[in-house]
Amino acid sequence: MQRRKPSPILYSYFRSSCSWRVRIALALKEISYDTVPVNLVKDGGQQFSAEFKEMNPMQQVPALKIDGITLSQSLAIIHYLEDTRPKPRLLPQDPKKRAQVRMIADHIVSGIQPLQNLSVLKQMGEKKTEWAQNCIASGFRALEQTLKHTAGRYCVGDEVSMADLCLVPQVFNAERFQVDMGPYPTITRINKALLELEAFKVSHPSRQPDTPAELRA
Amino acid sequence: MQRRKPSPILYSYFRSSCSWRVRIALALKEISYDTVPVNLVKDGGQQFSAEFKEMNPMQQVPALKIDGITLSQSLAIIHYLEDTRPKPRLLPQDPKKRAQVRMIADHIVSGIQPLQNLSVLKQMGEKKTEWAQNCIASGFRALEQTLKHTAGRYCVGDEVSMADLCLVPQVFNAERFQVDMGPYPTITRINKALLELEAFKVSHPSRQPDTPAELRA
Repeated sequence: MQRRKPSPILYSYFRSSCSWRVRIALALKEISYDTVPVNLVKDGGQQFSAEFKEMNPMQQVPALKIDGITLSQSLAIIHYLEDTRPKPRLLPQDPKKRAQVRMIADHIVSGIQPLQNLSVLKQMGEKKTEWAQNCIASGFRALEQTLKHTAGRYCVGDEVSMADLCLVPQVFNAERFQVDMGPYPTITRINKALLELEAFKVSHPSRQPDTPAELRA
Repeated sequence: MQRRKPSPILYSYFRSSCSWRVRIALALKEISYDTVPVNLVKDGGQQFSAEFKEMNPMQQVPALKIDGITLSQSLAIIHYLEDTRPKPRLLPQDPKKRAQVRMIADHIVSGIQPLQNLSVLKQMGEKKTEWAQNCIASGFRALEQTLKHTAGRYCVGDEVSMADLCLVPQVFNAERFQVDMGPYPTITRINKALLELEAFKVSHPSRQPDTPAELRA
Protein backbone atom coordinates (compact mmCIF):
# COMPACT_ATOMS: atom_id res chain seq x y z
CA MET A 1 0.00 0.00 0.00
CA GLN A 2 1.38 3.33 -0.99
CA ARG A 3 1.32 6.05 1.61
CA ARG A 4 0.09 9.36 0.24
CA LYS A 5 2.59 12.18 0.53
CA PRO A 6 1.16 14.77 2.94
CA SER A 7 0.11 18.10 1.43
CA PRO A 8 2.30 21.10 2.18
CA ILE A 9 0.96 23.27 5.01
CA LEU A 10 1.07 27.03 4.68
CA TYR A 11 0.94 29.11 7.84
CA SER A 12 -0.62 32.28 6.57
CA TYR A 13 -2.57 35.40 7.50
CA PHE A 14 -5.05 36.56 4.90
CA ARG A 15 -3.86 40.18 4.91
CA SER A 16 -0.11 39.56 5.23
CA SER A 17 1.56 40.70 2.02
CA CYS A 18 4.45 38.28 2.59
CA SER A 19 1.99 35.37 2.89
CA TRP A 20 0.28 36.48 -0.30
CA ARG A 21 3.56 36.32 -2.25
CA VAL A 22 3.88 32.64 -1.37
CA ARG A 23 0.21 31.90 -2.07
CA ILE A 24 0.69 33.27 -5.60
CA ALA A 25 3.73 31.05 -6.16
CA LEU A 26 1.84 27.97 -4.93
CA ALA A 27 -1.08 28.81 -7.20
CA LEU A 28 1.09 29.46 -10.28
CA LYS A 29 2.93 26.19 -9.77
CA GLU A 30 -0.37 24.39 -9.09
CA ILE A 31 0.80 23.00 -5.75
CA SER A 32 -2.18 22.09 -3.59
CA TYR A 33 -1.73 22.83 0.12
CA ASP A 34 -3.57 23.22 3.38
CA THR A 35 -3.76 26.58 5.12
CA VAL A 36 -3.27 27.04 8.85
CA PRO A 37 -4.35 30.60 9.62
CA VAL A 38 -2.19 32.55 12.06
CA ASN A 39 -3.92 35.72 13.21
CA LEU A 40 -1.28 38.43 13.62
CA VAL A 41 -3.51 40.70 15.71
CA LYS A 42 -5.72 38.35 17.78
CA ASP A 43 -4.52 37.26 21.24
CA GLY A 44 -1.66 39.78 20.97
CA GLY A 45 -0.46 37.98 17.83
CA GLN A 46 -0.75 34.20 17.47
CA GLN A 47 2.70 34.12 15.86
CA PHE A 48 4.14 34.75 19.32
CA SER A 49 2.64 31.58 20.83
CA ALA A 50 5.10 29.02 22.19
CA GLU A 51 3.74 26.44 19.77
CA PHE A 52 4.31 28.62 16.70
CA LYS A 53 7.72 29.78 17.91
CA GLU A 54 8.83 26.17 18.26
CA MET A 55 7.90 25.61 14.62
CA ASN A 56 9.22 28.95 13.31
CA PRO A 57 11.67 30.79 15.61
CA MET A 58 11.29 33.86 13.39
CA GLN A 59 7.69 34.18 14.69
CA GLN A 60 6.42 35.43 11.37
CA VAL A 61 4.17 34.28 8.59
CA PRO A 62 4.42 32.84 6.06
CA ALA A 63 5.96 29.52 7.00
CA LEU A 64 5.66 26.46 4.79
CA LYS A 65 5.93 22.82 5.86
CA ILE A 66 6.95 20.92 2.77
CA ASP A 67 9.06 17.85 1.91
CA GLY A 68 9.72 17.22 5.61
CA ILE A 69 11.13 20.65 6.39
CA THR A 70 9.72 23.96 7.61
CA LEU A 71 10.71 27.08 5.74
CA SER A 72 10.18 30.73 6.48
CA GLN A 73 10.97 34.02 4.71
CA SER A 74 8.79 34.46 1.65
CA LEU A 75 11.54 34.76 -0.99
CA ALA A 76 13.46 31.81 0.45
CA ILE A 77 10.27 29.75 0.25
CA ILE A 78 9.60 30.87 -3.33
CA HIS A 79 13.21 30.10 -4.33
CA TYR A 80 12.82 26.61 -2.81
CA LEU A 81 9.66 26.02 -4.81
CA GLU A 82 11.51 27.24 -7.92
CA ASP A 83 14.43 24.87 -7.21
CA THR A 84 12.20 21.85 -6.64
CA ARG A 85 9.12 22.56 -8.81
CA PRO A 86 10.60 24.56 -11.68
CA LYS A 87 7.45 24.82 -13.84
CA PRO A 88 6.26 27.37 -14.67
CA ARG A 89 9.51 29.18 -13.97
CA LEU A 90 9.42 32.35 -11.91
CA LEU A 91 12.94 33.41 -12.87
CA PRO A 92 13.99 34.11 -16.48
CA GLN A 93 16.77 31.99 -17.95
CA ASP A 94 18.96 34.92 -18.95
CA PRO A 95 21.18 35.87 -15.97
CA LYS A 96 20.82 39.61 -16.62
CA LYS A 97 17.05 39.37 -16.64
CA ARG A 98 17.16 37.17 -13.54
CA ALA A 99 19.16 39.91 -11.86
CA GLN A 100 16.52 42.49 -12.80
CA VAL A 101 13.80 40.27 -11.33
CA ARG A 102 15.72 39.84 -8.09
CA MET A 103 16.56 43.55 -7.88
CA ILE A 104 12.89 44.46 -8.05
CA ALA A 105 11.84 41.68 -5.67
CA ASP A 106 14.54 42.60 -3.14
CA HIS A 107 13.73 46.29 -3.43
CA ILE A 108 10.16 45.53 -2.34
CA VAL A 109 10.96 42.76 0.14
CA SER A 110 13.86 44.55 1.87
CA GLY A 111 13.41 48.18 0.94
CA ILE A 112 9.70 48.81 1.28
CA GLN A 113 7.69 46.15 3.11
CA PRO A 114 9.79 45.86 6.31
CA LEU A 115 9.42 49.59 6.97
CA GLN A 116 5.64 49.46 6.91
CA ASN A 117 4.96 46.12 8.53
CA LEU A 118 2.81 45.65 11.58
CA SER A 119 5.62 45.45 14.15
CA VAL A 120 7.14 48.77 13.05
CA LEU A 121 3.81 50.57 12.72
CA LYS A 122 2.82 49.54 16.24
CA GLN A 123 5.64 51.68 17.54
CA MET A 124 4.71 54.73 15.47
CA GLY A 125 1.54 55.63 17.37
CA GLU A 126 -0.54 58.28 15.65
CA LYS A 127 2.13 58.91 12.99
CA LYS A 128 1.48 55.36 11.76
CA THR A 129 -0.36 56.12 8.51
CA GLU A 130 1.90 59.01 7.51
CA TRP A 131 4.99 56.85 8.13
CA ALA A 132 3.65 53.98 6.03
CA GLN A 133 2.65 56.34 3.21
CA ASN A 134 6.10 57.92 3.12
CA CYS A 135 7.94 54.60 3.09
CA ILE A 136 5.80 53.23 0.30
CA ALA A 137 5.87 56.43 -1.77
CA SER A 138 9.63 56.69 -1.53
CA GLY A 139 10.04 53.04 -2.55
CA PHE A 140 7.52 53.36 -5.39
CA ARG A 141 9.27 56.42 -6.85
CA ALA A 142 12.43 54.32 -7.27
CA LEU A 143 10.46 51.31 -8.47
CA GLU A 144 8.58 53.32 -11.12
CA GLN A 145 11.93 54.50 -12.54
CA THR A 146 13.34 50.99 -12.54
CA LEU A 147 10.28 49.48 -14.23
CA LYS A 148 10.57 51.97 -17.09
CA HIS A 149 13.73 50.08 -18.08
CA THR A 150 12.62 46.51 -17.35
CA ALA A 151 8.88 46.18 -17.86
CA GLY A 152 6.96 44.59 -20.65
CA ARG A 153 3.48 43.39 -19.86
CA TYR A 154 4.79 42.53 -16.37
CA CYS A 155 7.70 43.75 -14.19
CA VAL A 156 10.43 42.21 -16.35
CA GLY A 157 9.37 41.52 -19.90
CA ASP A 158 6.23 39.55 -20.63
CA GLU A 159 6.62 36.59 -18.27
CA VAL A 160 5.32 36.51 -14.72
CA SER A 161 8.27 36.41 -12.32
CA MET A 162 9.15 36.63 -8.64
CA ALA A 163 9.12 40.41 -9.01
CA ASP A 164 5.42 40.32 -9.88
CA LEU A 165 4.67 38.13 -6.85
CA CYS A 166 6.10 40.91 -4.70
CA LEU A 167 4.56 43.82 -6.60
CA VAL A 168 0.88 43.01 -6.30
CA PRO A 169 0.78 42.51 -2.49
CA GLN A 170 2.78 45.73 -2.06
CA VAL A 171 0.31 47.70 -4.16
CA PHE A 172 -2.48 46.19 -2.05
CA ASN A 173 -0.73 47.57 1.05
CA ALA A 174 -0.33 50.95 -0.64
CA GLU A 175 -4.06 51.07 -1.27
CA ARG A 176 -4.80 50.11 2.34
CA PHE A 177 -2.71 53.06 3.47
CA GLN A 178 -4.34 55.31 0.84
CA VAL A 179 -1.13 56.11 -0.99
CA ASP A 180 -1.83 58.31 -4.03
CA MET A 181 -0.97 56.01 -6.96
CA GLY A 182 -1.14 58.86 -9.52
CA PRO A 183 2.65 59.24 -9.84
CA TYR A 184 3.13 55.51 -10.60
CA PRO A 185 1.41 54.71 -13.90
CA THR A 186 3.72 51.79 -14.73
CA ILE A 187 3.21 50.14 -11.35
CA THR A 188 -0.54 50.67 -11.68
CA ARG A 189 -0.69 49.20 -15.17
CA ILE A 190 1.31 46.09 -14.29
CA ASN A 191 -0.66 45.52 -11.09
CA LYS A 192 -3.89 45.62 -13.04
CA ALA A 193 -2.64 43.15 -15.65
CA LEU A 194 -1.48 40.73 -12.96
CA LEU A 195 -4.75 40.88 -11.04
CA GLU A 196 -6.47 39.46 -14.10
CA LEU A 197 -4.56 36.21 -13.75
CA GLU A 198 -6.27 33.34 -11.93
CA ALA A 199 -3.30 32.66 -9.59
CA PHE A 200 -3.44 36.23 -8.30
CA LYS A 201 -7.21 36.03 -7.85
CA VAL A 202 -7.42 32.78 -5.86
CA SER A 203 -4.58 33.88 -3.58
CA HIS A 204 -6.11 37.31 -2.89
CA PRO A 205 -6.61 38.39 0.76
CA SER A 206 -10.36 38.64 0.13
CA ARG A 207 -10.59 34.91 -0.65
CA GLN A 208 -8.70 33.11 2.11
CA PRO A 209 -10.05 30.65 4.70
CA ASP A 210 -9.37 33.22 7.43
CA THR A 211 -10.78 36.25 5.60
CA PRO A 212 -13.44 37.82 7.86
CA ALA A 213 -16.94 37.69 6.34
CA GLU A 214 -17.15 41.49 5.92
CA LEU A 215 -13.99 41.56 3.79
CA ARG A 216 -14.85 38.63 1.55
CA ALA A 217 -15.02 39.12 -2.18
CA MET B 1 44.34 44.19 -30.99
CA GLN B 2 42.19 42.83 -28.19
CA ARG B 3 40.36 45.34 -26.11
CA ARG B 4 40.58 44.64 -22.40
CA LYS B 5 37.25 44.03 -20.70
CA PRO B 6 36.66 46.88 -18.23
CA SER B 7 36.81 45.98 -14.54
CA PRO B 8 33.53 45.93 -12.64
CA ILE B 9 32.89 49.12 -10.66
CA LEU B 10 31.48 48.88 -7.15
CA TYR B 11 29.71 51.92 -5.75
CA SER B 12 30.29 51.43 -2.06
CA TYR B 13 30.45 53.14 1.33
CA PHE B 14 33.03 51.71 3.71
CA ARG B 15 30.62 51.38 6.63
CA SER B 16 27.52 50.22 4.73
CA SER B 17 26.75 46.66 5.75
CA CYS B 18 25.00 46.00 2.44
CA SER B 19 28.12 47.12 0.54
CA TRP B 20 30.26 44.88 2.70
CA ARG B 21 28.17 41.81 1.77
CA VAL B 22 28.99 42.38 -1.90
CA ARG B 23 32.67 43.11 -1.21
CA ILE B 24 32.94 39.72 0.51
CA ALA B 25 31.36 37.97 -2.50
CA LEU B 26 33.74 39.73 -4.90
CA ALA B 27 36.71 38.77 -2.74
CA LEU B 28 35.64 35.12 -2.36
CA LYS B 29 35.14 34.81 -6.10
CA GLU B 30 38.43 36.63 -6.75
CA ILE B 31 36.81 39.21 -9.00
CA SER B 32 38.97 42.33 -9.22
CA TYR B 33 37.06 45.59 -9.30
CA ASP B 34 37.37 49.33 -8.87
CA THR B 35 35.65 51.11 -6.01
CA VAL B 36 33.78 54.39 -6.38
CA PRO B 37 33.09 55.64 -2.86
CA VAL B 38 29.65 57.12 -2.21
CA ASN B 39 29.54 58.94 1.11
CA LEU B 40 26.10 58.40 2.65
CA VAL B 41 26.45 61.24 5.15
CA LYS B 42 28.53 63.93 3.38
CA ASP B 43 26.73 66.64 1.36
CA GLY B 44 23.41 65.36 2.77
CA GLY B 45 24.14 61.95 1.23
CA GLN B 46 25.94 61.63 -2.10
CA GLN B 47 23.55 58.82 -3.08
CA PHE B 48 20.89 61.50 -3.57
CA SER B 49 22.88 63.36 -6.26
CA ALA B 50 21.27 63.59 -9.71
CA GLU B 51 24.27 61.81 -11.20
CA PHE B 52 23.98 58.81 -8.85
CA LYS B 53 20.20 58.66 -9.16
CA GLU B 54 20.51 58.47 -12.93
CA MET B 55 22.76 55.43 -12.51
CA ASN B 56 20.79 53.82 -9.65
CA PRO B 57 17.20 55.05 -9.18
CA MET B 58 17.11 53.25 -5.83
CA GLN B 59 19.65 55.81 -4.54
CA GLN B 60 21.39 53.29 -2.36
CA VAL B 61 24.72 51.55 -2.19
CA PRO B 62 25.90 49.06 -3.18
CA ALA B 63 25.53 49.24 -6.93
CA LEU B 64 27.70 47.22 -9.28
CA LYS B 65 28.51 47.99 -12.92
CA ILE B 66 29.41 44.68 -14.48
CA ASP B 67 29.05 43.00 -17.89
CA GLY B 68 27.47 46.15 -19.34
CA ILE B 69 24.67 46.44 -16.77
CA THR B 70 24.22 48.20 -13.45
CA LEU B 71 22.82 46.19 -10.58
CA SER B 72 21.62 47.19 -7.15
CA GLN B 73 20.29 45.35 -4.08
CA SER B 74 23.04 43.36 -2.41
CA LEU B 75 21.47 39.90 -2.61
CA ALA B 76 20.44 40.40 -6.24
CA ILE B 77 24.04 41.36 -7.03
CA ILE B 78 25.40 38.35 -5.15
CA HIS B 79 22.95 36.02 -6.93
CA TYR B 80 24.08 37.47 -10.27
CA LEU B 81 27.72 36.80 -9.40
CA GLU B 82 26.73 33.28 -8.36
CA ASP B 83 24.88 32.73 -11.67
CA THR B 84 27.75 34.02 -13.81
CA ARG B 85 30.87 33.20 -11.72
CA PRO B 86 29.81 30.05 -9.89
CA LYS B 87 33.14 29.26 -8.20
CA PRO B 88 33.49 29.03 -5.29
CA ARG B 89 29.78 28.50 -4.85
CA LEU B 90 27.94 30.53 -2.25
CA LEU B 91 24.84 28.32 -2.30
CA PRO B 92 24.90 24.62 -1.40
CA GLN B 93 23.82 22.12 -4.07
CA ASP B 94 21.16 20.47 -1.92
CA PRO B 95 17.88 22.41 -2.31
CA LYS B 96 16.99 22.06 1.39
CA LYS B 97 20.32 23.46 2.46
CA ARG B 98 20.02 26.21 -0.16
CA ALA B 99 16.68 27.08 1.41
CA GLN B 100 18.28 27.31 4.85
CA VAL B 101 20.96 29.63 3.49
CA ARG B 102 18.38 31.88 1.87
CA MET B 103 16.17 31.86 4.98
CA ILE B 104 19.02 33.14 7.10
CA ALA B 105 20.18 35.64 4.49
CA ASP B 106 16.64 36.99 3.97
CA HIS B 107 16.03 37.15 7.72
CA ILE B 108 19.02 39.49 8.04
CA VAL B 109 18.53 41.39 4.79
CA SER B 110 14.76 41.94 5.13
CA GLY B 111 14.09 41.34 8.82
CA ILE B 112 16.92 43.11 10.62
CA GLN B 113 19.03 45.49 8.53
CA PRO B 114 16.25 47.65 6.99
CA LEU B 115 14.93 48.51 10.46
CA GLN B 116 18.25 49.88 11.64
CA ASN B 117 19.55 51.54 8.51
CA LEU B 118 20.52 55.16 8.28
CA SER B 119 17.31 56.47 6.69
CA VAL B 120 15.10 54.96 9.43
CA LEU B 121 17.39 55.98 12.28
CA LYS B 122 17.46 59.57 11.07
CA GLN B 123 13.75 59.76 11.86
CA MET B 124 14.09 58.30 15.35
CA GLY B 125 15.83 61.30 16.93
CA GLU B 126 17.16 60.58 20.41
CA LYS B 127 15.57 57.11 20.52
CA LYS B 128 17.90 56.11 17.67
CA THR B 129 20.30 53.84 19.56
CA GLU B 130 17.60 52.13 21.63
CA TRP B 131 15.56 51.47 18.47
CA ALA B 132 18.52 49.95 16.64
CA GLN B 133 19.44 47.81 19.64
CA ASN B 134 15.89 46.46 19.95
CA CYS B 135 15.60 45.61 16.24
CA ILE B 136 18.93 43.82 16.19
CA ALA B 137 18.36 41.97 19.49
CA SER B 138 14.95 40.77 18.39
CA GLY B 139 16.33 39.56 15.05
CA PHE B 140 19.34 37.92 16.70
CA ARG B 141 17.16 35.97 19.17
CA ALA B 142 15.40 34.32 16.23
CA LEU B 143 18.65 33.88 14.32
CA GLU B 144 20.40 32.21 17.27
CA GLN B 145 17.57 29.66 17.48
CA THR B 146 17.69 29.00 13.74
CA LEU B 147 21.46 28.58 13.68
CA LYS B 148 21.24 25.90 16.38
CA HIS B 149 19.60 23.71 13.73
CA THR B 150 21.66 24.70 10.69
CA ALA B 151 25.18 25.65 11.73
CA GLY B 152 28.38 23.75 11.38
CA ARG B 153 31.55 25.80 11.36
CA TYR B 154 29.56 28.47 9.51
CA CYS B 155 25.85 29.43 9.27
CA VAL B 156 24.83 26.34 7.29
CA GLY B 157 27.22 23.44 7.61
CA ASP B 158 30.93 23.89 6.99
CA GLU B 159 30.92 25.83 3.73
CA VAL B 160 30.84 29.62 3.48
CA SER B 161 27.52 30.71 1.97
CA MET B 162 25.42 33.79 1.23
CA ALA B 163 24.14 33.57 4.80
CA ASP B 164 27.65 34.17 6.14
CA LEU B 165 28.10 37.19 3.85
CA CYS B 166 25.07 38.71 5.56
CA LEU B 167 25.93 37.63 9.10
CA VAL B 168 29.31 39.30 9.55
CA PRO B 169 28.27 42.83 8.47
CA GLN B 170 25.18 42.57 10.70
CA VAL B 171 27.27 41.62 13.73
CA PHE B 172 29.53 44.59 12.91
CA ASN B 173 26.44 46.82 13.07
CA ALA B 174 25.38 45.21 16.34
CA GLU B 175 28.76 46.07 17.82
CA ARG B 176 28.53 49.66 16.58
CA PHE B 177 25.21 49.99 18.40
CA GLN B 178 26.65 48.25 21.47
CA VAL B 179 24.21 45.35 21.44
CA ASP B 180 25.02 42.87 24.23
CA MET B 181 26.16 39.77 22.32
CA GLY B 182 26.09 37.55 25.45
CA PRO B 183 22.80 35.82 24.55
CA TYR B 184 24.06 34.83 21.07
CA PRO B 185 26.99 32.41 21.50
CA THR B 186 26.40 30.67 18.15
CA ILE B 187 26.30 33.96 16.21
CA THR B 188 29.44 35.09 18.04
CA ARG B 189 31.33 31.87 17.34
CA ILE B 190 30.49 31.83 13.63
CA ASN B 191 31.30 35.51 13.22
CA LYS B 192 34.72 34.95 14.76
CA ALA B 193 35.47 31.98 12.49
CA LEU B 194 34.47 33.96 9.40
CA LEU B 195 36.57 36.98 10.32
CA GLU B 196 39.64 34.77 10.14
CA LEU B 197 39.11 34.28 6.41
CA GLU B 198 41.05 36.52 4.03
CA ALA B 199 37.96 37.53 1.99
CA PHE B 200 36.27 38.89 5.11
CA LYS B 201 39.44 40.74 6.13
CA VAL B 202 40.18 42.54 2.86
CA SER B 203 36.54 43.61 2.51
CA HIS B 204 36.31 44.94 6.10
CA PRO B 205 35.09 48.53 6.63
CA SER B 206 38.42 49.39 8.24
CA ARG B 207 40.33 48.66 5.03
CA GLN B 208 38.43 50.43 2.24
CA PRO B 209 39.64 53.26 -0.03
CA ASP B 210 37.15 55.59 1.66
CA THR B 211 37.82 54.53 5.26
CA PRO B 212 38.74 57.67 7.22
CA ALA B 213 42.31 57.62 8.56
CA GLU B 214 41.20 57.43 12.21
CA LEU B 215 39.19 54.25 11.55
CA ARG B 216 41.80 52.41 9.52
CA ALA B 217 43.05 49.05 10.68
